[in-house]
Amino acid sequence: MTNEKLNALRSCMEKDGVSVYLITSTDFHASEYVGDYFKVSEYVSGCTSDNVTLLVEPDRARLWTDGRYFISAAAELKDSGIELMKMGEPGVPEVEAYLEERLQKDGVLAFDGRCVSVKKGLQYREIAARKGASVRGDKDYASLIWENRPPMPSHPVRILPEEIAGCSVREKVEPLRGAVRRAGANYLLLSKLDDLMDLLNIRGADITCNPVALSYGLIGTDSFDFFIQESEVTGEFRDYCKKLAVSLHPYEELRTFLTEKNFSGPVLLDPVCTGYALYELLRDRVPVVMKPNPTELPKAMRTPAQIERTKEYYLLDSAAVCRFIFWVKKHIGKIRITELSAAEKMDSLRREIPGYLDLSFPTISAWGPNAAMAHYAATEENQSEVKPEGFLLVDSGGQYLGATTDVTRTIAVGPLTPEMKRDFTLVAAGNLALLTARFRYGCTGRNLDTYARAPLWARGMDYNHGTGHGIGYILNVHEGPQSIRWKYIPELAEAVFEEGMVTSDEPGIYIEGKYGIRTESIVLCVKDMENEFGSFMRFEPLTWAPIDLDAIDTGYLSDADIRRLNDYHREVREKILPLLNEEEGAWLIEATREI
Amino acid sequence: MTNEKLNALRSCMEKDGVSVYLITSTDFHASEYVGDYFKVSEYVSGCTSDNVTLLVEPDRARLWTDGRYFISAAAELKDSGIELMKMGEPGVPEVEAYLEERLQKDGVLAFDGRCVSVKKGLQYREIAARKGASVRGDKDYASLIWENRPPMPSHPVRILPEEIAGCSVREKVEPLRGAVRRAGANYLLLSKLDDLMDLLNIRGADITCNPVALSYGLIGTDSFDFFIQESEVTGEFRDYCKKLAVSLHPYEELRTFLTEKNFSGPVLLDPVCTGYALYELLRDRVPVVMKPNPTELPKAMRTPAQIERTKEYYLLDSAAVCRFIFWVKKHIGKIRITELSAAEKMDSLRREIPGYLDLSFPTISAWGPNAAMAHYAATEENQSEVKPEGFLLVDSGGQYLGATTDVTRTIAVGPLTPEMKRDFTLVAAGNLALLTARFRYGCTGRNLDTYARAPLWARGMDYNHGTGHGIGYILNVHEGPQSIRWKYIPELAEAVFEEGMVTSDEPGIYIEGKYGIRTESIVLCVKDMENEFGSFMRFEPLTWAPIDLDAIDTGYLSDADIRRLNDYHREVREKILPLLNEEEGAWLIEATREI
Repeated sequence: MTNEKLNALRSCMEKDGVSVYLITSTDFHASEYVGDYFKVSEYVSGCTSDNVTLLVEPDRARLWTDGRYFISAAAELKDSGIELMKMGEPGVPEVEAYLEERLQKDGVLAFDGRCVSVKKGLQYREIAARKGASVRGDKDYASLIWENRPPMPSHPVRILPEEIAGCSVREKVEPLRGAVRRAGANYLLLSKLDDLMDLLNIRGADITCNPVALSYGLIGTDSFDFFIQESEVTGEFRDYCKKLAVSLHPYEELRTFLTEKNFSGPVLLDPVCTGYALYELLRDRVPVVMKPNPTELPKAMRTPAQIERTKEYYLLDSAAVCRFIFWVKKHIGKIRITELSAAEKMDSLRREIPGYLDLSFPTISAWGPNAAMAHYAATEENQSEVKPEGFLLVDSGGQYLGATTDVTRTIAVGPLTPEMKRDFTLVAAGNLALLTARFRYGCTGRNLDTYARAPLWARGMDYNHGTGHGIGYILNVHEGPQSIRWKYIPELAEAVFEEGMVTSDEPGIYIEGKYGIRTESIVLCVKDMENEFGSFMRFEPLTWAPIDLDAIDTGYLSDADIRRLNDYHREVREKILPLLNEEEGAWLIEATREI
Repeated sequence: MTNEKLNALRSCMEKDGVSVYLITSTDFHASEYVGDYFKVSEYVSGCTSDNVTLLVEPDRARLWTDGRYFISAAAELKDSGIELMKMGEPGVPEVEAYLEERLQKDGVLAFDGRCVSVKKGLQYREIAARKGASVRGDKDYASLIWENRPPMPSHPVRILPEEIAGCSVREKVEPLRGAVRRAGANYLLLSKLDDLMDLLNIRGADITCNPVALSYGLIGTDSFDFFIQESEVTGEFRDYCKKLAVSLHPYEELRTFLTEKNFSGPVLLDPVCTGYALYELLRDRVPVVMKPNPTELPKAMRTPAQIERTKEYYLLDSAAVCRFIFWVKKHIGKIRITELSAAEKMDSLRREIPGYLDLSFPTISAWGPNAAMAHYAATEENQSEVKPEGFLLVDSGGQYLGATTDVTRTIAVGPLTPEMKRDFTLVAAGNLALLTARFRYGCTGRNLDTYARAPLWARGMDYNHGTGHGIGYILNVHEGPQSIRWKYIPELAEAVFEEGMVTSDEPGIYIEGKYGIRTESIVLCVKDMENEFGSFMRFEPLTWAPIDLDAIDTGYLSDADIRRLNDYHREVREKILPLLNEEEGAWLIEATREI
């Protein structure tokens, strides 16, 4: 099967004299998750990973993906004729190093330049130049070889009323134009879908759980051209754009528009999330300024109105999580619960919330050893029963007309070993230390990550993922620019924590073949005090759900840890109790008791 | 007085058509501390700060320095006609931003390009280009206007026996050549004095407390040219160089040599610590590769032989510090002690140690409110008596034939207020948390700084300096590449902590007008465990001196903090007791008692 697809690709390559063809797993907007239309790497390789680079050569094919997918990718690539390259493992070259080795004089590296970022495209071009090879960024072989390709995703655009959006479009566009000018440009070419949605106070449905519409924006000093499939444009949206002086164009016409436009000054674009093909098209016509999108920071800093709605929905969402934990605790060992039936229970409790739109990602429900796989997804064919022992880990979230939520609780569903309790307790201590940290204004996630990991590091343990990611507002569940992680990556800019940023706090521990633990709460960054020593910031929890006391071993907690846990639980009780029925309430009082 | 010097400068500027003349406080080697010959900014302005940029214009003069010197610089610049620019203060432009504003079309920015780094020089050139102005890096006005200028420092070079150096020159030069090749160059032009000393296993005496000799090295694939003042070359050193196949040249002849040399490939230089003038000279003749010196990391990673000697000397040095604390505690309130007499006592105890060479910096001895100034220096004219109340802070260190030491202890010399005890205790907790931290291999100082600051941050307090700096081996007391600090500086590369690195751990707290506290121990980075979660590192203390229990309020310590303090004190007792006399020993037992 797969080999036929590789062969079809290789025929195209031979015709064009291409020595290496590169396929990514992203769309034209560098999205983390993509519509089916864009799953070219999955079509060719069978590999469902979200972070893939596939290099096809006449005599070999290799697929790079990251640690979240090593196990699943290995299974999917079996007998495919494609070799798995485990990113970051010792002895595995990076894509760039591998290209450096494989590209020969007069060789040709080709790809669909819409699905490769400017940054990567330029790196590839540099490597090719060093080797006397060349790069073709206009080879879209998917459109030639993919039979029965799914259609481009297309769903009507929804306009957010200003009171829900929390800020008017004008209040965002004018400062943005100033930022573009300060960056030395007259235009911003914006490809990032969540930034476009936020800027225009609209939402789409072109990516599962990510309420975005495929689109581009070209924002000039006194112009705003917006490119979107005509099938997504409602009459209401057309009127809306007219009022905002936003000119509508068909999505497909961006290239023609850019080619024919008489630019009156430099164009700013973000090399990390703009397609290399657009850069190729622009660079001979107009000076290109490459800097991060100036939309990123304002989008991440919630307005007071957004914060108010966010807090309301996080309360309702937290109450649903509490109800779910109660349901699990009540029924475990009495009725048959599977990973999927548990997930369905969680999802159904969310659906009851007024203003519910969608899940923010498919619910992760993993029992026992399954939870040791950080990106485990249960399926009908392949799932586990939730037996009354060990842990059930549930990582879930919703999209509401006022928030995107994300929360993980690990629930003791039966007897635990001392190791399980120790690890659960250390993770809880790390989660709470970060949650309650006070820190100087100017800190980035690399300063703060230490709070969450110190209890585990002290015992020679760790988790192999970041501690926190930004979260959108009725948008993507993974957003930048802030993140909380420890590893130093010189070329990666770090974002200072600003007032109004919403971020996850999710340490964990994963013991292969045994169990997985993660405790994730979402936090809002707020100003703390300003005094002779400087300005201080802190976090406020947005998530209010008990941390399972059945899994706590106080022998691993300091007095300060215990105080933090009791303080958090007291607030959970105060905030959530009024939202529960009597039976649920009685359980919550017990679940949040002082220890 | 000062105005006459400014006028002399302005005459030179007028003659050459220079609109802005820039003076730094460094020498030709980007040294932090410099010989008197190089103190041009001090000669012109009267300002003794170590980190100065002075911009002289026809109608104004401005001097930038950092927070350590705001108070002293303000006093020194009074009535000088030079305005103080406080670096990093709100509203104060950086030198570059100021130049951007002041340089006009056809303007000329001039400086002595030997005392300006390549990095800065190129930034200035870029600014000038943007403004249609130009840059002259060959204007050494100091030599024209400075009457009675001190001579160039010059002291004979000392050769370290291999058993003291801890590594042969050959063992260092061959890997260095490999690193230069890997960086894409055939030559390394090395200007950094400590790197040169380390590479050749020699020491000089051209900068107070910094055992370095003014010199340059040009290391080729099979050549090593070393430039040093002839007055520093002994017969022994000449023979030594001959054996090492190092060609000796007079210091002054570097420029001629570089101008006449037929380079067979690119030259590597570190833009941060090489003079811009050298780059100007090279850039038209040979490709220049600009990267950090590949000598930096090997120099920072102590060899086992160096570690052994370092530990021995730190024991002796720590015993001297213990004796000093005992002396203070015994005599305070009974004999007259001044800041300078205390410093002299400390220094005299160091001088008694066999293998003592010099202080590693002038001893800081500060009582009461004086200690709130982080870089306080007592003088005969202006010093304080050490009264029997509050704290005496002593920050000191020595150069030995096997170590460079640095240690700060804050000693309770009488009654303390509750605030003093609280702050002392929090600083101790931070110091010990960092000292005992276990952390993943790959961490830089920005991950680790959080350990030291968290106890203070939690109470809205902080100290306005870094937590740790690297320390040389019988070399400079401040060395890179590692450092422990929290602030994110995007353009500053961070160094991963490697086995064998020696670093300070020195949190503090400074209450203006009241008191200052700092607890500084030196730590060695060692490998800890390697397991399924990754590789872990930790620190081992090198400094063994009690943290004053008279100033500890256990109400501010967790059980873990108390355990760390007791563990440290037990080791102090075990290691230092054998080095003390009976009276001193009795005191140490009490001073390190379990709490």
